[in-house]
Amino acid sequence: MIETDAALARAALPRGFIDRDSADLAAAEAMMAKIRKVYELYGFEAVETPFVEYTEALGKFLPDQDRPNAGVFSFKDDDEQWLSLRYDLTAPLARYVAEHYEKLPKPYRSYRAGWVFRNEKPGPGRFRQFMQFDADTVGAASPAADAEICMMAADCLEALGIARGDYVIKVNNRKVLDGVMEAIGLGGEANAGRRLVVLRAIDKLDRLGPDGVRALLGDGRKDESGDFTKGAGLEKAKADALLDFLQPKFPQDILVTREGGRIHEQSDEAGRIPNADANHVVGSNASTIDSLRHLFDQPKYQEGLDELSNLAEFTESAGFSQSVICIDPSVVRGLEYYTGPVFEAELTFETPGEDGRPIRFGSVGGGGRYDGLVARFRAEPVPATGFSIGVSRLLAALRAIKSPIVAGTEAPGPVVVLALDRDEASMANYQRLVASLRRAGIAAELYLGSGGMNAQLKYADRRQSRVAVIQGSNERNAPGGPQVTIRDLKLGAELAKATKDRADYLELRKRAQFSAPEAELVERVREMLTRE
Amino acid sequence: MIETDAALARAALPRGFIDRDSADLAAAEAMMAKIRKVYELYGFEAVETPFVEYTEALGKFLPDQDRPNAGVFSFKDDDEQWLSLRYDLTAPLARYVAEHYEKLPKPYRSYRAGWVFRNEKPGPGRFRQFMQFDADTVGAASPAADAEICMMAADCLEALGIARGDYVIKVNNRKVLDGVMEAIGLGGEANAGRRLVVLRAIDKLDRLGPDGVRALLGDGRKDESGDFTKGAGLEKAKADALLDFLQPKFPQDILVTREGGRIHEQSDEAGRIPNADANHVVGSNASTIDSLRHLFDQPKYQEGLDELSNLAEFTESAGFSQSVICIDPSVVRGLEYYTGPVFEAELTFETPGEDGRPIRFGSVGGGGRYDGLVARFRAEPVPATGFSIGVSRLLAALRAIKSPIVAGTEAPGPVVVLALDRDEASMANYQRLVASLRRAGIAAELYLGSGGMNAQLKYADRRQSRVAVIQGSNERNAPGGPQVTIRDLKLGAELAKATKDRADYLELRKRAQFSAPEAELVERVREMLTRE
Repeated sequence: MIETDAALARAALPRGFIDRDSADLAAAEAMMAKIRKVYELYGFEAVETPFVEYTEALGKFLPDQDRPNAGVFSFKDDDEQWLSLRYDLTAPLARYVAEHYEKLPKPYRSYRAGWVFRNEKPGPGRFRQFMQFDADTVGAASPAADAEICMMAADCLEALGIARGDYVIKVNNRKVLDGVMEAIGLGGEANAGRRLVVLRAIDKLDRLGPDGVRALLGDGRKDESGDFTKGAGLEKAKADALLDFLQPKFPQDILVTREGGRIHEQSDEAGRIPNADANHVVGSNASTIDSLRHLFDQPKYQEGLDELSNLAEFTESAGFSQSVICIDPSVVRGLEYYTGPVFEAELTFETPGEDGRPIRFGSVGGGGRYDGLVARFRAEPVPATGFSIGVSRLLAALRAIKSPIVAGTEAPGPVVVLALDRDEASMANYQRLVASLRRAGIAAELYLGSGGMNAQLKYADRRQSRVAVIQGSNERNAPGGPQVTIRDLKLGAELAKATKDRADYLELRKRAQFSAPEAELVERVREMLTRE
Repeated sequence: MIETDAALARAALPRGFIDRDSADLAAAEAMMAKIRKVYELYGFEAVETPFVEYTEALGKFLPDQDRPNAGVFSFKDDDEQWLSLRYDLTAPLARYVAEHYEKLPKPYRSYRAGWVFRNEKPGPGRFRQFMQFDADTVGAASPAADAEICMMAADCLEALGIARGDYVIKVNNRKVLDGVMEAIGLGGEANAGRRLVVLRAIDKLDRLGPDGVRALLGDGRKDESGDFTKGAGLEKAKADALLDFLQPKFPQDILVTREGGRIHEQSDEAGRIPNADANHVVGSNASTIDSLRHLFDQPKYQEGLDELSNLAEFTESAGFSQSVICIDPSVVRGLEYYTGPVFEAELTFETPGEDGRPIRFGSVGGGGRYDGLVARFRAEPVPATGFSIGVSRLLAALRAIKSPIVAGTEAPGPVVVLALDRDEASMANYQRLVASLRRAGIAAELYLGSGGMNAQLKYADRRQSRVAVIQGSNERNAPGGPQVTIRDLKLGAELAKATKDRADYLELRKRAQFSAPEAELVERVREMLTRE
């Protein structure tokens, strides 16, 4: 029934999907344990939804909705119902809250880590299955809830060893952006398409700078490859007003201008920035908001600024200065369901890449307020706000800075009992030896391949085993009772490189490999595993 | 952009999918940590593959292949390639090993927990997304590898507090079954259909007994609902030979017959069965094999028995008697890719169900040897064997026996700081109080809903919080500096029920709620959290 005769199947993953080995898994788990602890410190509790939902329940809120299949994997079940793999963790949470509304505490703080799926063209660092680690508060309309989410995002990054000044939580407000759109004549349903073009242009400010964005707001822009992107067709005065609004107002830029250096280069040994606590901020969110106040007078715009002002007061009161949680009008966030404050967690440091050129990791998470998402299922409004960490990208950043949190998290290999004689009785005896080690809580395995002694020792090395146990027939039948040879593979490897002139060479050799009665196996192996 | 005006979306999961709350997640994690530890004790290392594979890579090995879509969720990506959600963890592992063959240690022992998907009609205890926790050894042809898998399965169940005698690992061999099929004239490709009918009949021995199986082997059987299942049409002599082969030979049945009681009723206090260690088995696998030897003489049949004999010698030598790992010719396992030994882990105890009638959980996992699965991708044979635990069903069993491993694994709720005044300045001040608790490592949250004091205290109860912190404007503006009220919610609840005649009532009341200077908040809350 096995298709061995047919043409061979291709052993490959579809593009955009990856396997993870034990080192990857241990590193991710170590990182996620830290995040989980911060979420729980903030009173959030775990909940998990399945990967599959009714397509209708998920709705269509992905960015770039103009593409044909809207980025979602969908299929029919055997009842001919359309199902989809979730594309984020927020839409399923909204369904969950609506479905279990009565039994949940309100406000409902919850967190979840989970894989999400996008049917998109994969690219470097862009996967079709990736993990998000979200926390959300449902049922709280106050900017206090948004403030809390921002503080929690900051605390997560610090719990991972990313120092203040090496990251920033940027905050904007969809109401502010909507007000700006109205002000420049792009309000209303009829302008949805042009609004999208403008928002995408704003989103590229970091990468293209003001001139690039100005081109995209006007007639369009030709990129380095010669491709032309059509612009939003805004007249010059309106584009100028928009760029004035976007003008950078956060401390990094101020410092770059004034001192000519990046802010984290001025941090003290602990990675903290002098004068960056709540009482001595470099610039302030209040002054950012002040400078934005007079630009437009749309009520929505002003309401959005009020909320941002509240949010900043709460975060600063709790000890998070503008250098940590920073109002920044250029933050857009692509998802369509946001209705109020939006957040973006950015790493601001650079590390040398493989080619020596500096890499900046940029955004490792984001979120915002989505007051309409639960209301899709219920006849009443249910305010909600949340944050999502991009697990893979954050992990890549931690690895790049050689964070001790994700390095060396792998367990050492098991004790390997060599199989020198392969007759049934010998193998049964080896099984007994291995079982005695396991029963004592020592990870151990019997070599089950077909290689000889050298291959078996090489295998143990490959498993990063510390100890090998060897028993040939002579030892098993020794006159004084069965013996085993116990070898310290680490010490053995060092000895092999050492010169024999060393005064302690013989002593070391005795410690690296010795014979012992079989009855002492567990005890002697444990000694070897615990010694330096 | 939110569809609030449209008809409400339905807040429901598709059938066969479930949400998991924090208690479910904590219980599952506690159980899986125990299993993980046993797998690692046996030298297995973690690896993880994605949920999506090329449909071709997964192959079609599900039982009941006669159904139209073969039980798999499949869809096309935007490159028009057919992809599928994995239906088990074994087919993806085969792809993984084939893809990364050169860099893997061989034999390659690995484990993985993961969700799998079946596009089937869901039912009680039958889900369309469920979790398996697998361990596999690839590159070892010896029955020693199968023996190890069986021992590991037994050790997993014991690590979960399931005593010897309350479970059994049943072992059979596909070669033995194939030999029997040849002997009764059902060998060869032409008989594949009838063979499947016979194997399904055998698989129902537990449920239907010998007479029910005899009917299914012959003309067919009408069940209690009146539905008729067509039989395999075997002539009587062949059906008799098959039933003779299936005759129960494992100790439970012997004990049921001889003593009239279930085996675990005879266990000692520690749940162990007297005389059930390696030297004093009740019956033996050797005698089972002896009694099977003479039934058929097909070479494949005899080869299968040889392998089972080897396997039993290895497990018994390592201290696992027949009462734990038991040769049982009635074990079938539905998946089509098995080629040698097959295993089934069964819980043998009963617990009273909700209606008082006893429930037997039965199979909680299984596996077997699949020597052809990696070979689908490579031009050389790669032997492999493995085991899969059904996480949900095992968890349900542990909950039914009120296992301490999965009970009470939930963390207590956070400290709740009440929000009595909702002006901006007060809220900022509450945020500062909450932040100081979190900074001291105490899980804490600010109440962010719209309820009054009673609603807020009720919320804290619902979160299972131990402590509430209260500060009204009088306390904040107290003449000697700001004060807070700290309330022990557990003690408070007890006091509310206690009579005031208690000698220590006033003392208790003082401990249940008191005022303290704001500066002592962290210290006093910590005292309250750590006291009895």
